[in-house]
Amino acid sequence: MHLFYQPGEFTPGVALPDAVLHLTEDDSRHAMKTLRLKPGDSIAVTDGRGNRHSAIITPSTGKLTTFRITNTRTTPPRPFSIRICVAPTKSLDRIEWFVEKAVEIGVERVSFFFGKHSERRVLKLERIEKIAVAAMKQSLQSWLPQFDDAVPFSELLQTISEPQRFVAHLPDSEPPVNLSKSATPGGSYVVLIGPEGDFSDNELQQATDAGFRMATLGPNRLRTETAALTACQVLNFINF
Amino acid sequence: MHLFYQPGEFTPGVALPDAVLHLTEDDSRHAMKTLRLKPGDSIAVTDGRGNRHSAIITPSTGKLTTFRITNTRTTPPRPFSIRICVAPTKSLDRIEWFVEKAVEIGVERVSFFFGKHSERRVLKLERIEKIAVAAMKQSLQSWLPQFDDAVPFSELLQTISEPQRFVAHLPDSEPPVNLSKSATPGGSYVVLIGPEGDFSDNELQQATDAGFRMATLGPNRLRTETAALTACQVLNFINF
Repeated sequence: MHLFYQPGEFTPGVALPDAVLHLTEDDSRHAMKTLRLKPGDSIAVTDGRGNRHSAIITPSTGKLTTFRITNTRTTPPRPFSIRICVAPTKSLDRIEWFVEKAVEIGVERVSFFFGKHSERRVLKLERIEKIAVAAMKQSLQSWLPQFDDAVPFSELLQTISEPQRFVAHLPDSEPPVNLSKSATPGGSYVVLIGPEGDFSDNELQQATDAGFRMATLGPNRLRTETAALTACQVLNFINF
Repeated sequence: MHLFYQPGEFTPGVALPDAVLHLTEDDSRHAMKTLRLKPGDSIAVTDGRGNRHSAIITPSTGKLTTFRITNTRTTPPRPFSIRICVAPTKSLDRIEWFVEKAVEIGVERVSFFFGKHSERRVLKLERIEKIAVAAMKQSLQSWLPQFDDAVPFSELLQTISEPQRFVAHLPDSEPPVNLSKSATPGGSYVVLIGPEGDFSDNELQQATDAGFRMATLGPNRLRTETAALTACQVLNFINF
């Protein structure tokens, strides 16, 4: 069964039996040209907001694939939420890879930021979202995470509302605490992952002032994107 | 401090103060052309078998960078060991990405195999090892994992000696057990990760006969390389 993504046409949480809808332009092309689906074929369509519709392709003369919904299954949000705030890597490949893997494994929100030692301050959010949609479909999920465009570190800190706050950094004085031991199950988490050049002392101070606790992700020195994914994995594991 | 890899010149576990040695051709070029290191500069050199030498570059007229060891620190093997057996993905990028990340996070051995539903049966082990060496240096480790070239599944099963054996697969009948709950800390683990086309029934039977237990890696459907990395992450986490 092929899973498509149509964000625009559905009201969250409301099932629309017998409504006639259409796939996006990209998905229509994929459905007709690549998969050669025909009227009467069954598909699944998610809105990325928890609804997954079973549907049947209906006859259509236009370029868009139309379908009729036969059944809707709504998945509630997970009983915990993971937000990763990460500085884009110099090579965009690496951050894109992180996005694909984090979505597969499970993440609610990814916020990009740049800090004093960031070499890269911009990224293509549209491309990031495209990768995320593909990963959501691939892993058969019904929720698309939220992605926030890169902002300066101090501006990022203004957007934090999650109670369980961690910054991936080895503390200078106190003994290091592993994220898997510090975070408690069922929470709303946010983890800050610094750029390749690491956080500045001032940024670490700002984070501490905002209630972030320093935590390590294991004994090895990890690249930015590996650290971001590992934080995501740890927080998923303690909840399963 | 730059970390280099010289596998050939050291006796495992034996410190060689005052011995004069040289870097590999690749590392010599990197040291002289890119990093512009000079005689008298300090470097670190690992043999990938637990020894990390502090060294000083010595004058040399040839193409190879020579050095003198001033101090050796030996890291014992970890008190647990992780072996991931994985079918190469259709796109080699994906398996290479897995290798880089697994080495960063920590893995003892990676064995490749092909099964009935494998689309790819060969890979370039030399390239895999090169990526692993780079990841070992990047994450400042002193142990290089072992990599085994792709063999048929039944041949792979002959090489299994680890007592804690898992196959990443959802059982048909019994309730699924999560790898993080099945594996116990401090063990010698081996996990089988199937190809994109999954294991055949016959292969699953062979694995079960060889003492493998089915285990899941979480609620989502994961790509081959994501499953392989997640297994590696889980087994590291339960040991920290």
